[in-house]
Amino acid sequence: MEDKILLAHGSGGKLAQDLVKNIFFRALENPLLAKLDDSAVLDFNGKLAFTTDSYVVHPIFFPGGDIGKLAVCGTTNDLAMSGAKPLYLSLGCVIEEGLPFKDLDRIVNSIKVMADEAGAQIVTGDTKVVDLGSADKIFINTAGIGIIPDGVDISGHNARPGDWIILSGTVGDHGIAVLSRREGLDFGTSLESDCAPLAGMVADMIEVCPEIHSLRDPTRGGLASTLNEIVAQSNVGMKIDEKEIPVREEVMGACEMLGLDPLYIANEGKLVAIVPAKDADKVLSCMKRHRYGKDAVIIGEVTGDHPGRVVMRTSLGTSRIVDMLVGEPLPRIC
Amino acid sequence: MEDKILLAHGSGGKLAQDLVKNIFFRALENPLLAKLDDSAVLDFNGKLAFTTDSYVVHPIFFPGGDIGKLAVCGTTNDLAMSGAKPLYLSLGCVIEEGLPFKDLDRIVNSIKVMADEAGAQIVTGDTKVVDLGSADKIFINTAGIGIIPDGVDISGHNARPGDWIILSGTVGDHGIAVLSRREGLDFGTSLESDCAPLAGMVADMIEVCPEIHSLRDPTRGGLASTLNEIVAQSNVGMKIDEKEIPVREEVMGACEMLGLDPLYIANEGKLVAIVPAKDADKVLSCMKRHRYGKDAVIIGEVTGDHPGRVVMRTSLGTSRIVDMLVGEPLPRIC
Repeated sequence: MEDKILLAHGSGGKLAQDLVKNIFFRALENPLLAKLDDSAVLDFNGKLAFTTDSYVVHPIFFPGGDIGKLAVCGTTNDLAMSGAKPLYLSLGCVIEEGLPFKDLDRIVNSIKVMADEAGAQIVTGDTKVVDLGSADKIFINTAGIGIIPDGVDISGHNARPGDWIILSGTVGDHGIAVLSRREGLDFGTSLESDCAPLAGMVADMIEVCPEIHSLRDPTRGGLASTLNEIVAQSNVGMKIDEKEIPVREEVMGACEMLGLDPLYIANEGKLVAIVPAKDADKVLSCMKRHRYGKDAVIIGEVTGDHPGRVVMRTSLGTSRIVDMLVGEPLPRIC
Repeated sequence: MEDKILLAHGSGGKLAQDLVKNIFFRALENPLLAKLDDSAVLDFNGKLAFTTDSYVVHPIFFPGGDIGKLAVCGTTNDLAMSGAKPLYLSLGCVIEEGLPFKDLDRIVNSIKVMADEAGAQIVTGDTKVVDLGSADKIFINTAGIGIIPDGVDISGHNARPGDWIILSGTVGDHGIAVLSRREGLDFGTSLESDCAPLAGMVADMIEVCPEIHSLRDPTRGGLASTLNEIVAQSNVGMKIDEKEIPVREEVMGACEMLGLDPLYIANEGKLVAIVPAKDADKVLSCMKRHRYGKDAVIIGEVTGDHPGRVVMRTSLGTSRIVDMLVGEPLPRIC
């Protein structure tokens, strides 16, 4: 077998079959995928969540993860943010000719490990190969299907004045970790992406509080953009407190050096939960018991005032409007 | 508004919202998509088909279609090949910085027109923008969900000796049409891609014959690879007759000039149906009544002899084994 991907591996012929068998199936095999028909056939009954994301992160390997880990965490997290239990994933890869097999193998193995942790199976897939220079190593798309438990209705449209806003941990880790590897910057040895599958923690949270109003993972655009999306969808305001928002020292240092605001930096293993005030303590305790929520904090509340606006009390004691991200400080972060 | 895609259009911030609103929503809006949560929420009950494909065709506009038309036809056709009625699609775009808005607009409008014809809605999506030179204009992934009618069990595993093999029309049109545009070759003015949504015809076929055994669309790798996949999955043989396989004159001429075999050239609006002999005539008549099946023909039969092999009686009267595609004669055809 060659040690690099050739154009013919994308052909639909023998070499393509070898690639599927030797790399994708070896890691991912399950009875649904093994049927190799044009679609996977699944039995279903209930309310289903369906989502998709493409991943173009550069570099494809970074501290704390790789593009495969990201492709499973990102999509299963999107399902979890609708309250769904992730069940099935599709996997579409666009590969640049010349990608070493060992890199592809490592990525596919990350996909397997993360899918197992998230409780999802890869049941259908597709691989295209493009000529050298027509893509940057590998782009991955995953679409996901999950099932939403009866009675759960979680949406960015459901935030209500009086709700409390919980953040699951530090912000900015993923964006700064990817940036540091890409630019060869060294902001401290310990900084890793927070990339993680959150579906398990979300299932626990829903068990203690089936009335969670909104969940969202602050990826591209960071915490600031996520909160702005929710205030717009629910036509409410928010008051948050800067000193409650946890930021790692290395992330703060990097942001100061580069003129970035950690509130706008992408995360890949964090979530924001909007919950009725009466349930906030039990949801917070539930999150703190979980490895991905041990630093969870209440960062503010939903208000009926200034609908569509997120207002932050700064650490200096003044107030400022936290707006949507406008430009693009960090491209290709996910 | 700018006339070209900027990196910031992939940011998760304001410009990304503008892009979604002004290009994607304007064409594709529906109540499920409009919720703008992390996942679309769908009610479901039954046997579901799930599939994905990435599209990297070069050039993105070609005679008879474009990458958007392809992205909807290819994925809804894969659903139809499992007997499913396509219902929901996801849309993941990876766009190279600098793509003119008018090109994106044209592509998204093709997506809308084709989704309508196939009976499917775009319910969730994602857009990434990469820097100039890191992708080639636009790559599209669509994943699809469809519902399979009760009692229908169509799979590449179900071909049985004695079944007849029906082909829905001419082979090689898509591959040669794309190639001719890409290489600036002129094989005759009338040659267009056969790219088409087949779900409607398949629904009609299932109505007249719910016992169809296998359906497959001969895309990458062409008719030869598709038949080889089915004989391998079902552990049967096939005998086909070269003179029954319709090939347009322009396609035959191009293949002769370039040393290609039309049996290995991609199609995007054709299907192969494997049906019980007793039902072959009624399925064939049903196909012939449809605009995408008017040239349908019976090209051969499934045998118990030589399992795993496709044998063709050539127009010279000799027999030859039609093998799986090995190399890649035409990259980036879909």
